[in-house]
Amino acid sequence: MDRSLLVGLIFSKKSFLCIGLDTDLTKIPSHLLETEDPIFEFNKAIIDSTHDLCIAYKPNFAFYECYGAQGWKSLTKTIQYINLTYPGQLFSIADAKRGDIGNTSQQYARAMFDPSSSGMEFDAVTVAPYMGEDSVKPFLSYPGKWIIVLALTSNKGAADFQFFQNGDQRLFEQVLSKSQQWGNNENMMYVVGATQAEMLCDIRKIVPDHFLLVPGVGAQGGSLLEVAKYGLTKQCGLIVNSSRNIIYASSGPDFAMKAREEALKMQQEMAAILGFTQTKC
Amino acid sequence: MDRSLLVGLIFSKKSFLCIGLDTDLTKIPSHLLETEDPIFEFNKAIIDSTHDLCIAYKPNFAFYECYGAQGWKSLTKTIQYINLTYPGQLFSIADAKRGDIGNTSQQYARAMFDPSSSGMEFDAVTVAPYMGEDSVKPFLSYPGKWIIVLALTSNKGAADFQFFQNGDQRLFEQVLSKSQQWGNNENMMYVVGATQAEMLCDIRKIVPDHFLLVPGVGAQGGSLLEVAKYGLTKQCGLIVNSSRNIIYASSGPDFAMKAREEALKMQQEMAAILGFTQTKC
Repeated sequence: MDRSLLVGLIFSKKSFLCIGLDTDLTKIPSHLLETEDPIFEFNKAIIDSTHDLCIAYKPNFAFYECYGAQGWKSLTKTIQYINLTYPGQLFSIADAKRGDIGNTSQQYARAMFDPSSSGMEFDAVTVAPYMGEDSVKPFLSYPGKWIIVLALTSNKGAADFQFFQNGDQRLFEQVLSKSQQWGNNENMMYVVGATQAEMLCDIRKIVPDHFLLVPGVGAQGGSLLEVAKYGLTKQCGLIVNSSRNIIYASSGPDFAMKAREEALKMQQEMAAILGFTQTKC
Repeated sequence: MDRSLLVGLIFSKKSFLCIGLDTDLTKIPSHLLETEDPIFEFNKAIIDSTHDLCIAYKPNFAFYECYGAQGWKSLTKTIQYINLTYPGQLFSIADAKRGDIGNTSQQYARAMFDPSSSGMEFDAVTVAPYMGEDSVKPFLSYPGKWIIVLALTSNKGAADFQFFQNGDQRLFEQVLSKSQQWGNNENMMYVVGATQAEMLCDIRKIVPDHFLLVPGVGAQGGSLLEVAKYGLTKQCGLIVNSSRNIIYASSGPDFAMKAREEALKMQQEMAAILGFTQTKC
């Protein structure tokens, strides 16, 4: 999905919400555990009930890999379902935090972007920058696909290395600057945690137009208004993720409806932030 | 596998060789493509022909994930085969370069270390340090398991961020220092590329006793003698990986025998480095 389509989705849906599919067998409604593929059934119900309120889904690979090959099957079915059922209506993010030497990242890129090889086709993948240019570039050889580079993450451990300082430049700023040589705002985004909202001013000085994927609103304590205040651009420039607050709004048979209610609240806040007065109901 | 068992393996096998299972369908002998699971059949033959010459295997996850759920099945069968056929005789490394916020790294840890969840049980996993302490610690809650933290990698892009300098400390040195607070030399190792052999002196000043996993000998141009010169400790302290040079020594029906010949050459070099005069033949 190219940038203009993504921006189009955001303004037509009046939303920049991404729903994180961190699907956990211990948290989903018990009646689903009797189905053949509970993880997929849960995801399908969440997607069907929220697809018009969000612009993206972000399966978190760890939550599938912990069930091994079977988990990968559920993951594959989920992305296939999104692509087949809602073509062109949703941006999909493989939240996999991959990155390795060049010939290895090439294989990871096939996993995420080449359905003839892996059965899966996402629009974007999150990548870890520690290994530098050749660990990231292979993902950029797929036209229309995106990488989302970890810059400043939402967790406590972000402080351990991301603020490592060389003169007046911190490591996350070096990641933002250096990576400009590898891609552009048509194929590269950055992860910036909502818990770091006050840093968005500094970040926007380096990447004024790039999309930022912002996790950490909700369960991790970040504020949507703060994020928008410092991070919003004319073309929105933000994809804000919420996972647990939405998908686990209820653990009963009404989980999909309750998830929709939570997603709707966020979509309405986002519509207002984007300057729309009329909101969906 | 605890440290004393690992050291015991090294001195009884007179080897600190790890064989990287970067198994690629386009490079394995064509007669295997007719089998039901060519990747597993290839790995099984390589393992059977080299298990007494090496002390570890390291499947590179990207090479399995590029085939999606089917690839994960081959990967699962491979680690199960190692654990069932050669119990206690081999150290296994999940080369997955994982790392995410705490609750997510917990799930990745289950994938690598909890066979009741994922069907897989490795001894160690490679982790990317960019997200800091809480992205790494969940892997350390499994007794007898190891994390192998990326410090100084073997690729060109290593220079992009790993040498980022704060005063007289470079980022990879900060990773080595800081991570001492999270684990110890009984559950933590570091990745140091063989192409960075001249840096091993500096690294040994910070982590004199930790095991180092050293990729990059062979295809990537690193030298085993150089690595041993600067990195060897009394308990060896090195696990040197070779992938392509060994597993693709031949693309014919003799591939397993040729892989053994290459592994034997390395094992003999290693036996000499460890101070053994009598080598296997």
